[in-house]
Amino acid sequence: MTTNWDGNPSENLLLTPGPLTTTPATRRAMQRDWGSRDCDFIELTARIRRRLLAVVGGEAAAMTCVPIQGSGTFAVEAALQTLVPRDGKLLILVNGAYGRRMAEICRVTGRAHEVLEWPEDRPVDPAAVAAALEADRAVTDVAVVHVETTSGLLNPLAEVAEVVATAGRRLHVDAMSSFGAIGIEAGAMQFTSLFASSNKCLEGVPGIGFVIADVVALTCAKGNAVSLALDLEAQWRGLESAGQWRFTPPTHVLAALDAALDQFDAEGGVPGRFTRYSRNCAVLCAGMRELGFTPWLDDALQAPVIVTFRIPDGGWFRFGDFYDSLHARGIVIYPGKLTALDSFRIGCIGAIGEAEIRRALGVIAETVAAMRG
Amino acid sequence: MTTNWDGNPSENLLLTPGPLTTTPATRRAMQRDWGSRDCDFIELTARIRRRLLAVVGGEAAAMTCVPIQGSGTFAVEAALQTLVPRDGKLLILVNGAYGRRMAEICRVTGRAHEVLEWPEDRPVDPAAVAAALEADRAVTDVAVVHVETTSGLLNPLAEVAEVVATAGRRLHVDAMSSFGAIGIEAGAMQFTSLFASSNKCLEGVPGIGFVIADVVALTCAKGNAVSLALDLEAQWRGLESAGQWRFTPPTHVLAALDAALDQFDAEGGVPGRFTRYSRNCAVLCAGMRELGFTPWLDDALQAPVIVTFRIPDGGWFRFGDFYDSLHARGIVIYPGKLTALDSFRIGCIGAIGEAEIRRALGVIAETVAAMRG
Ligand SMILES: Cc1ncc(COP(=O)(O)O)c(C=O)c1O
Ligand SMILES: Cc1ncc(COP(=O)(O)O)c(C=O)c1O
Repeated sequence: MTTNWDGNPSENLLLTPGPLTTTPATRRAMQRDWGSRDCDFIELTARIRRRLLAVVGGEAAAMTCVPIQGSGTFAVEAALQTLVPRDGKLLILVNGAYGRRMAEICRVTGRAHEVLEWPEDRPVDPAAVAAALEADRAVTDVAVVHVETTSGLLNPLAEVAEVVATAGRRLHVDAMSSFGAIGIEAGAMQFTSLFASSNKCLEGVPGIGFVIADVVALTCAKGNAVSLALDLEAQWRGLESAGQWRFTPPTHVLAALDAALDQFDAEGGVPGRFTRYSRNCAVLCAGMRELGFTPWLDDALQAPVIVTFRIPDGGWFRFGDFYDSLHARGIVIYPGKLTALDSFRIGCIGAIGEAEIRRALGVIAETVAAMRG
Repeated sequence: MTTNWDGNPSENLLLTPGPLTTTPATRRAMQRDWGSRDCDFIELTARIRRRLLAVVGGEAAAMTCVPIQGSGTFAVEAALQTLVPRDGKLLILVNGAYGRRMAEICRVTGRAHEVLEWPEDRPVDPAAVAAALEADRAVTDVAVVHVETTSGLLNPLAEVAEVVATAGRRLHVDAMSSFGAIGIEAGAMQFTSLFASSNKCLEGVPGIGFVIADVVALTCAKGNAVSLALDLEAQWRGLESAGQWRFTPPTHVLAALDAALDQFDAEGGVPGRFTRYSRNCAVLCAGMRELGFTPWLDDALQAPVIVTFRIPDGGWFRFGDFYDSLHARGIVIYPGKLTALDSFRIGCIGAIGEAEIRRALGVIAETVAAMRG
């Protein structure tokens, strides 16, 4: 490990897509109470907004960061229902559950939308997007998932952004699983909004989502939302007017995020984190292959975030038993989420390094030996 | 102090309507990471739902507790947009900002509604509610704020519930500032939903709201919501099906709430907490009167939650200076929220007792002496 990540894993090793293992320093930041309308907390909020914006270089691109209480989905929904105009139409690029969730959001909130779909092991195809935008002039906005956590697949975001910009449409990016770990540069790539949350690659605790949004688009978005709590434009105006949240913010979660961002900076920001996660992922995949497990995705499509493994043949492997055995030894993994295939997932993000991945591999090796009998 | 409240105030004394001072035990509960889909966490969630329901005796009344990520307003909006049918009409009883906020929610989410309004120092009048329900047969639902945090006023909830039940309408109760401190018995009083949050009289940290809802009403509410994240029926079905949250829960906030509920039980539940807060409020009002400040509400209307004080005459009192002086000594109070009058507010809830109120009064006395010059 070449980074200066300073944490120790807590008792549980969470090898999931989040919430994840955090450092003691991050959790210690929750030991203080904050008055949510107090100047100290106004400063904390402003600092976090600035730091999150800087992760994607959004300041230079005239963007702003609008945090929103709740989980990541709350940020996704706030962005889509506020920034896709009421008379707009959203083209959603789908190759997994989180793309489908955006379609569900549009259905419930009453936004016109269309889905362009690929198999869960294929990336979104920019040429097909270009053709779809050419064919349907009613489409005003496009949404894409950067890393589809369903499989662990990295979609070609820059190429999609290029095609959408060329076609003169707005782009909305679900960067939940990539923000902070995989480089996104607002200066080099055009998007109207990009959303993520505190508890994935930023290694904070869960409870807050945020949207990096184009200021001009926000300015024009008044009255679009069909929810008071999820009105991103009103949330932004509130924060801009006096630095105040409209509704009670999760103060301790935000203090933890600020501490997590200190550690993110100390690790060298996105490049540092990418390096550690890539190493985690490589060690995990190599070790699992040795134990007879095959990663489901082609290597070229695999993001260093979470890896899907096929359930091995031969009938000896029962996921429930496997999960329980790992759990009994403090290691938490995830069931699969693919539509077509029985699988399971192991994450490589959070406040963990190669040592923790090797520890997990040791437990997995013993479990497999016992299961094979 | 007659309770067995075991906490020490943290460095800041938050005499606000929330977030509040919490105990070290509550904050210590955030030192562990949880896998949000793990069986331990499923149990934690189920236990919290059971405990919150028991606070109002909701189990016997065939109600259920549905937690929702975000702040209290998220729970208010989830309840109203899910439980007031799309073709229903909500009569909102308003004597402060939180009643007005429910009207705003209806406006944004497109629910037909009507407002019945009183001055901010007058309680809601049940007889007027009965007359309004008689006059407008289109009204299907009524919403009321139990303690209007705007002023600190206690509305006559039982009497309103009686009138609404007699008229055969559904009642929705904003109990944000009263839940856990002022007795509400689901068995003795009919309501369809009642909402509150983690960070007021329950003395948890902010980040989660919840709705105590009638199971039959929830069952009939499918498809009412205009938001995915705030769909209370879908949230409930998710939690009931496998004990799982639809979207990432704020794990650390929930662990803190569970610990806060341990302390709530140890204090003797609602009666214990009511006793401590009443004492806090009495000591605060008496001390402030001695210093020349007049509580704005009639004593009979004052809930032991937060007290509004008039800005004193004579021109010597500037709220900004007053606030800063208290803040410099670790005491955080709140500006007023009345429409008509310059005022400020001091809360008496949170993990504080008579000693902390007296400490605050000492600081206020010195500040006043200095300001009077
Ligand atoms: C790509 C993606 N989008 C959205 C979400 C939803 O986030 P949350 O569970 O915090 O609502 C997730 C969570 O795993 C995700 O991976
Ligand atoms: C009566 C009442 N309702 C609703 C709210 C809104 O809660 P939140 O700020 O957590 O969204 C509050 C907060 O003070 C309140 O006092």
